[in-house]
Amino acid sequence: MGNEKKNIEIEAIGEFGLIDELTSDFVLRNDSSIKGVGDDSAVMSSKEGEHKLMSSDMLVEGVHFNLSYMPLKSLGFKAVSVNVSDIYSMNGMPEQITVSLGVSSKFPVEALKELYAGIHAACEYYSVDLVGGDTTSSYSGLIISISVIGSVAKNKITYRSGAKENDLLIVSGDVGSSYLGLQILEREKGVFNANPNIQPKLDGYDELIKKQIQPTARMDVISMFQEMSFVPTSMIDVSDGLASEVMHLSKSSDCSFSVYSDKLPISEKSALTAEELGIDPFVCALNGGEDYELLFTASQKDFDKFKNNPNFSIIGFATDKSNANLLIDKNETAVTLNAQGWRHF
Amino acid sequence: MGNEKKNIEIEAIGEFGLIDELTSDFVLRNDSSIKGVGDDSAVMSSKEGEHKLMSSDMLVEGVHFNLSYMPLKSLGFKAVSVNVSDIYSMNGMPEQITVSLGVSSKFPVEALKELYAGIHAACEYYSVDLVGGDTTSSYSGLIISISVIGSVAKNKITYRSGAKENDLLIVSGDVGSSYLGLQILEREKGVFNANPNIQPKLDGYDELIKKQIQPTARMDVISMFQEMSFVPTSMIDVSDGLASEVMHLSKSSDCSFSVYSDKLPISEKSALTAEELGIDPFVCALNGGEDYELLFTASQKDFDKFKNNPNFSIIGFATDKSNANLLIDKNETAVTLNAQGWRHF
Repeated sequence: MGNEKKNIEIEAIGEFGLIDELTSDFVLRNDSSIKGVGDDSAVMSSKEGEHKLMSSDMLVEGVHFNLSYMPLKSLGFKAVSVNVSDIYSMNGMPEQITVSLGVSSKFPVEALKELYAGIHAACEYYSVDLVGGDTTSSYSGLIISISVIGSVAKNKITYRSGAKENDLLIVSGDVGSSYLGLQILEREKGVFNANPNIQPKLDGYDELIKKQIQPTARMDVISMFQEMSFVPTSMIDVSDGLASEVMHLSKSSDCSFSVYSDKLPISEKSALTAEELGIDPFVCALNGGEDYELLFTASQKDFDKFKNNPNFSIIGFATDKSNANLLIDKNETAVTLNAQGWRHF
Repeated sequence: MGNEKKNIEIEAIGEFGLIDELTSDFVLRNDSSIKGVGDDSAVMSSKEGEHKLMSSDMLVEGVHFNLSYMPLKSLGFKAVSVNVSDIYSMNGMPEQITVSLGVSSKFPVEALKELYAGIHAACEYYSVDLVGGDTTSSYSGLIISISVIGSVAKNKITYRSGAKENDLLIVSGDVGSSYLGLQILEREKGVFNANPNIQPKLDGYDELIKKQIQPTARMDVISMFQEMSFVPTSMIDVSDGLASEVMHLSKSSDCSFSVYSDKLPISEKSALTAEELGIDPFVCALNGGEDYELLFTASQKDFDKFKNNPNFSIIGFATDKSNANLLIDKNETAVTLNAQGWRHF
C-alpha cells in the first residue's frame, strides 16, 4: 500500500518533472560550463593548450552497492567520487558530469532527492557541474551511470604508460581500509539478519566504514603535485586493488615493478581489524580495492619530494620488463605479484 | 543447461577480457580522439573557436526496447543513433562515445558481440570513436548507457532557445512512421503469442519497422545546412514526439507556435498503416515519438531554402508568446497543442 502511493508519486510528476525536481538547486561553477541541463546536450568551452578528458562508470544495485547499509546520500557522493577519480588519475581536473539513473518504481521521489543531495555535495566538494543526464525507470533496483569530463594542460597529462626503469612507485594515503570497512558492514549485516534484536557494532570502525561508504577521490593530491611542480611519469587510481593497478601500469608502461610488502601503507586500525577478522592485512592492501588512492611513478630525481612526505609512501620501483612483477617481503623473499581485484562477473 | 555454459563463458574471460574482446576492432577516426579505450579516461583535443557538446542517454530492456523483436545488432546501432541525434540537434558533429553496459549473465559473449557489431556499424556510419566505458553485470536484463561528445563552431551552435516570432517551423523527413512500426511489431507479437504457429506478417512494413528498429540520426541534415550556409535559430530532435518537441522549443524560446496539421509530413505507408490499425495518423505524427528527425526554426529570409526542398516540411511558424501553441486543421479550426510524448514512469 505504502509502495503504491510512492509509485504514484513518481508517475505523477513524470520524467521532465522529476529531472527538474532533482536538478533545480544545482548551479554551474566552472567557466568551461557554458550550458548545463535543459537543452539536447551540454555545452563546454574548449581551449588551445589543454586536452579534454572523459570517463564513464556504471554502478548497479546488488553488484556495486547494497542499499541495506549504503545510505543513498553517501551513494550519490561515492558515485561521483569513483568517476572524478579517473580524471585525477590523468593529472587533470574534473569539470562536468552527466548522471543517468535507472530507478524502479519502489523508489519514492524523496529517496531520489537523498541520492541527489549526495551528488550535489560531491559536485560542491570537487567543484564539478552537473550538466545533463537521463532518468528512466528500471525493472529492478537502481542503476547509476555517470560520465565525467575534465581538462588537463597538454604538458601535464599523465598516462598509465610513462613509467621508466628505476622510477619510484608511490601511492597516496593508505590501502586496504575500504575493503575492511566492507567486511565489517557485511559481518554486522550477517549478525543482524541472524538476530534482528542485536544492534550492529559499527562504533570504532568509522574510519574504515567511511572509506568504504563515502570515499573521497584525491583532488588534494593533484593540487600537491602542482605546488611541488611535479608531474608523475605514469598514474592510475586504485579501484580494483593495488596489485591489479600495479599490473596495469606494468602492462601499459612496458616495464615491471618490485613492490615491498613492508612499505605498503596500512593504517593501524586496518591492521587491528584485519587481525580481529582473521584476514591477512597485506591481502587487504594488495587486493582489497575501492581505495581511490593514486598510484603513480616518479623519476629518481624527484625522490626528495616524497621521501619524508606523510601523504605518500614509496612502495617500490620499476624494473626492466624482463623481470616479473614481484612482491618482496621483509626477509627479501620475492613472490610473483598476483592481481585478483574485483570481478563482477 | 545451455545457459549455464554461457554464464561460465562470461565469467571465464572476466571484465577486462570482455572489454578487450568487445572493443578490439574499433579504430580511432577523429583527429580530436587522442586516446581511446585503455587508460583511466579518454583524451580529446580541444580548440579555440569551438565548443564541446556532451549528452548521455540510458536504454533499459523492457522499458526502451524489447529483445523479442529487437535484434541486438540493431539495438547497438539505435543506442548510438539516439545519442548522436542530441549532438546534431545542437548543429554539431559527434566525435566520441563511451558505452557502459549492464548485462545479466543470461547474455552469452556472442550476444554482446552482436550488440557491439551494431555499435561498431554506427561508429562507422556517424564517424564517431568509441573511447571508453564500463561493462558490469546486472541482475535483470540489459542496460545500455551511452555518453557522446561532439564539437561545433561557436558561431553555429544552435540552442532550443533562439526562435523568434514569425520564424518558420520546419521538420526534416517524416514523422509517425517509427510509432507505426512499433504498433506493427506489437500486433504481430500478440498474434504470435496467441498462436505460435502463425508467422508474423512483417512484409510490406519494412520502411516503418526499420524506422523503429534501426533509425538513423540526421547527420545528413547538418551537412545540408552547411552546404546551404544555413544556421537554424533553434533546434531539437524528435524523440518524445513532435508535439512535445514543439512545446520544448516554445518554452525555451519564449514564443508560441502554430502548427498546420495538413503540413505534417506523413508518409503514404504511414497513412495506410494508421488506417489499417484504426489509429489517427495525425496522432501518430504528433505524439508517436522516436522519429529522430530534426525540428528547427528558420528566419523568414531563409524561406527560399526550404519552400520546395523535398527533405524538409514547413509545418508552421512562431507567434508571440501571448498566443497558445496551436494545431490548425485544414478547415482553419485551431485547437491547443497537447504533448503526450513517451512517459516511461
